[in-house]
Amino acid sequence: MEHDFVRWLSSHLPSSRRLRPGIGDDAALVALDTPQVVATADLLIEGVHFLSAKHTPSQIGYKALAVNLSDLAAMAAQPRGALVSLALPRGADPRLGQQIIEGMLPLTERWDCPLVGGDTNTGPGPLVVAVTALGEPSSRGVVLRSGAQPGDVLCVTGPLGGSLAGKHLDFTPRVSEALALHAAFSLHAMLDISDGLALDLHRMAVASGVGALLYATAIPLTPAAHQSAAASGRTALDHALADGEDFELLFALPPEEAARLQPGVFPQAYPVGVITAEPGLWLEDADGVKQPLQPMGYEHQ
Amino acid sequence: MEHDFVRWLSSHLPSSRRLRPGIGDDAALVALDTPQVVATADLLIEGVHFLSAKHTPSQIGYKALAVNLSDLAAMAAQPRGALVSLALPRGADPRLGQQIIEGMLPLTERWDCPLVGGDTNTGPGPLVVAVTALGEPSSRGVVLRSGAQPGDVLCVTGPLGGSLAGKHLDFTPRVSEALALHAAFSLHAMLDISDGLALDLHRMAVASGVGALLYATAIPLTPAAHQSAAASGRTALDHALADGEDFELLFALPPEEAARLQPGVFPQAYPVGVITAEPGLWLEDADGVKQPLQPMGYEHQ
Repeated sequence: MEHDFVRWLSSHLPSSRRLRPGIGDDAALVALDTPQVVATADLLIEGVHFLSAKHTPSQIGYKALAVNLSDLAAMAAQPRGALVSLALPRGADPRLGQQIIEGMLPLTERWDCPLVGGDTNTGPGPLVVAVTALGEPSSRGVVLRSGAQPGDVLCVTGPLGGSLAGKHLDFTPRVSEALALHAAFSLHAMLDISDGLALDLHRMAVASGVGALLYATAIPLTPAAHQSAAASGRTALDHALADGEDFELLFALPPEEAARLQPGVFPQAYPVGVITAEPGLWLEDADGVKQPLQPMGYEHQ
Repeated sequence: MEHDFVRWLSSHLPSSRRLRPGIGDDAALVALDTPQVVATADLLIEGVHFLSAKHTPSQIGYKALAVNLSDLAAMAAQPRGALVSLALPRGADPRLGQQIIEGMLPLTERWDCPLVGGDTNTGPGPLVVAVTALGEPSSRGVVLRSGAQPGDVLCVTGPLGGSLAGKHLDFTPRVSEALALHAAFSLHAMLDISDGLALDLHRMAVASGVGALLYATAIPLTPAAHQSAAASGRTALDHALADGEDFELLFALPPEEAARLQPGVFPQAYPVGVITAEPGLWLEDADGVKQPLQPMGYEHQ
C-alpha cells in the first residue's frame, strides 16, 4: 500500500526535503506525457552488492536508485518516479530506512524523479534494497541495444575501469547525457556498461546480429583503472574492458552522425570502435594488430 | 537489466508457459492506453510474511504478485505488467526461483499481466520476494480511498475473517470485481482490506474526513472466521473486523447507486454500513445498540 509508505516518508524526512506528493493511495498514480512506461528493477543485498561495515546507508541508497536510473538512461528514457522496497534487519539502527532514502534524494531531485511508493519491512536477514524506476520514452521513442548496424561508430560517455575502487558507489547515472544524445543524434543502439565494456559490447553485438572492433588506444581510462593495474599486475586497458559497474553508456550511431560529436562538448562522447558485419569482437592495438576480444566481465548468476 | 531477467525466465519456464515477450532491454517498455501509470510495490520476507517450511515456493510467488494486484484492484486499475526481484538464499534448491515465478503464472495469465522485468540475486539471507505491479486507470480514472461522502453505502466484495487459516495464500485479487464495479457504478472511495475491516475502514474514513457506522449483522463472515472464533474464544465478528489479509475490497458509493447492486450477481457486493458526517467509527448490533469501534487490526511497522 503506497499510502503507508508515502506517510512514512513524510514523517521521516526533514521538511525541507519533503517529496513532491504524488497520489499515493493503495497504489501510486504517475502522470506521463505518452502512453508508454519504461520500467526497471534492481535488488541489492548486504554482503553481495555492498557491505554495511564499509558503506554508509546513504551510499547504499544512492547506488540502489542510481543503478536503476542508469538502466532508464540506457533506453534514453526520462525518469518519472521510483518505488523503494526495504527489508531492514531486525535490531538495526531505527534511522536506517530513513538514511537509505536520504541517500536517494540527490537523484530524485536532480531528475525530478519522486519516490512515489514502496514498502518497508523488518526481517531476520541482511539489508535488502529493491528499487523499481519508472520512466517514459521521449517523442523519439526508446533506444534498444539491438539496433547497431555495420559501419556504426561505437562511443562511450566516459572513462572506464577500476570502478570498484569507489566510483561504483557515487557514479552519476548518464540520464542527462542519454536524453541529450537521443535528442540531437540518431542513435542506433545503446546500453549501460554495468559488467565491463567487453561483455556489454558482446551483448549489444549479439542482440544486433553484428560484430565489433575496438581500438585499444581510443578507450578512455580512469585514474582508477591505472591504479587497479598497478595493484593487479594486469593492464589498465584490461580493467577498462573487464571491470564492472562503470555505468557509462555505450552507444552506436552512423559515422555521419558521429562526425557531429564534438570533443569536450556536452554530451561528452569518446569514439572507441566500429560495428562490423561479421560477428565476433576484435581489439586493435596501437600497431594495427587485431586480436580476438573475449567477452569477459562480471557475469550475474 | 531486464534483458537478463527475461532471458532467465525464458530458459527456466516450460515452453508452454513462456511469457509474452515484452520489450525487455536495459529496461522494459510497457504500452498503455492512457498516459498514466498506476504502480505499487510489496516485499515479502521469509520468516515474516511466509514460512518456507510450511509454504511452497509456488504459494509464495502467487501471494507476492496477488497482494500487488489487490492494490491495483483497490484503485480500479487494469494490470499491465509486473517486475519481480528475488533475493534467493545461498544453497537453496536451484529451482527455487523458477518455482516462485511459476506460482505467479495463473495470475499473469488470468489478467494478461506479463512479467516484464526483474532481477534475480543470490545472497546470504532468507528468501525475499519484491514485486512491483504496473497498471493503468480506465477511462473513468482511478478510485481513491479519500472520496467517501456522508450517506454513502459501504460494501465489501466478500466474506471476511480468519484469512491466516489459509485464504491469505490463495486468495483471488478482486481485479475483475473492481473493474466491473468501476465501469457500472459511481464509486466514491475504495481500498483493499489488507489489515482488517476496522483498521482499513478507519483509514478510508480519515482520508475522506468522515466517519462510518457498520451493521454487525450485515458483515459477511467466512467459515474460517467461525473456526478461528472457536479456537480463539473471540467472536467470528471480531475476526472479521480485526484479522488481516482478507484482500476483499471495501468501497463506498451513493445510496441510489448501491440500490442497483443485485445480491448474488457479479460483481458481488455486501452492504455493511454507511458513511457518516461525524468522524469516528461505530458498530451497531442486532438490537440497534451502537458501540464505538476501535480501529484494530494488523499494524505494519
